[in-house]
Amino acid sequence: MKKIKLTMAYDGSNYCGWQIQNNAVTVQQKIQEACHKLFSREIKCVGASRTDTGVHALGQVAVIEVDTTIPDDRIPYALNAYLPNDIVITHAQEVPEDFHPRYQAIDKTYVYKIYNGPFPVPQYTRYAYFYPKSLHVDKMQTGAQYLIGRHDFKAFCSAGSSVKSTVREIYQCDVATYNGCIHITIKGNGFLYNMVRIIVGTLLDIGLGKREPDSMQSIIASLNREQAGVTAPAKGLTLAAIQYA
Amino acid sequence: MKKIKLTMAYDGSNYCGWQIQNNAVTVQQKIQEACHKLFSREIKCVGASRTDTGVHALGQVAVIEVDTTIPDDRIPYALNAYLPNDIVITHAQEVPEDFHPRYQAIDKTYVYKIYNGPFPVPQYTRYAYFYPKSLHVDKMQTGAQYLIGRHDFKAFCSAGSSVKSTVREIYQCDVATYNGCIHITIKGNGFLYNMVRIIVGTLLDIGLGKREPDSMQSIIASLNREQAGVTAPAKGLTLAAIQYA
Repeated sequence: MKKIKLTMAYDGSNYCGWQIQNNAVTVQQKIQEACHKLFSREIKCVGASRTDTGVHALGQVAVIEVDTTIPDDRIPYALNAYLPNDIVITHAQEVPEDFHPRYQAIDKTYVYKIYNGPFPVPQYTRYAYFYPKSLHVDKMQTGAQYLIGRHDFKAFCSAGSSVKSTVREIYQCDVATYNGCIHITIKGNGFLYNMVRIIVGTLLDIGLGKREPDSMQSIIASLNREQAGVTAPAKGLTLAAIQYA
Repeated sequence: MKKIKLTMAYDGSNYCGWQIQNNAVTVQQKIQEACHKLFSREIKCVGASRTDTGVHALGQVAVIEVDTTIPDDRIPYALNAYLPNDIVITHAQEVPEDFHPRYQAIDKTYVYKIYNGPFPVPQYTRYAYFYPKSLHVDKMQTGAQYLIGRHDFKAFCSAGSSVKSTVREIYQCDVATYNGCIHITIKGNGFLYNMVRIIVGTLLDIGLGKREPDSMQSIIASLNREQAGVTAPAKGLTLAAIQYA
């Protein structure tokens, strides 16, 4: 038996997120179905990140355990033949038996895109949140810098999460406009449930001038979800990359 | 009669370019049909740039002459109601009678996207050229700098063009990787037929190491189309913006 690390990209629009469910189509299910067809037996696929309904990925990671003679570099071709067009395995590599995609991740990078124009344009329909109100991107960038560092991010965690600790470290949080679209890039050692989308909702308030950039400090300190902004829509969010040692 | 400048975005995938043709669906035709429905008479729409089949736009400009009481800022809503989802008017503004969208443009900006990964991923299927071979982006950026300035770009002009002068000035040409996708941004006072796509084809040769970055100088000096690279595919190209005084 070999343990294989799969890296993958998907358009989350048509899926009820990563994790397998009854009565809903998920990405994990599609991967497991493709593995079943390729390897002729049921295979459990363990993902690094449980992306929500509608969230996209460019660098999701998952592992499978298989007994196969297919060389690692051919596995993406073989699995992609059984996958729909909106899920693509981009890399496969044998990893040590003790490798775990979630516990051994060093950092994760998410990108949230906001199309800030007067009308929704076709190029940004699928992967960006259309937000027509005028935004001060410079203030959003200033506010984002307060997130960097090791903090208790309880104020940025949706109810229903059962994690032991809400302390996480953010390494990078940048807000920049590129080709008419605002990109918010966030890199950290881990993220709480809906954390990126709540950060984006809070940065939007700052961009509108409803909050000052330095209010981010008191929101963090409050440890109170009600102090932060709304949860921004899923469609703007992409799990860009997961890094391992 | 009022002259109205329309700014628009479109996904060019389903159109045989901008210019109206017999037996092919074009963007100009769709705009004129929408104007016909809205203003109840035939209206000629004059575009700034004749984008080719499959080329996209975020900032195409065109003018129409109409006799209407609809306020400028409502015209996009009214026209968009008659347009398909892949063509969107983003701005409308009355301009002086002598305004011409092509002759009065100060500069145009094009962006060409190359997805340089091992497998095509859904996020870049529609608006980027999938190019799996490894590229030296730094060399492409070095080569791109030789294009800046006023040059005779005859070597970068497809046959079949009937322009009087092939001299153009390029103000900016940058090659940068963003979210795993190479973006080539070119700004100039005007562009010859297929010029951006031939520049991209030449930069790809440089990125592969088949040409040196400084070979761009001798290619320009040759005034010979055969010295430059192939014409890169239309789908990676977007007319990003047109600037007026």
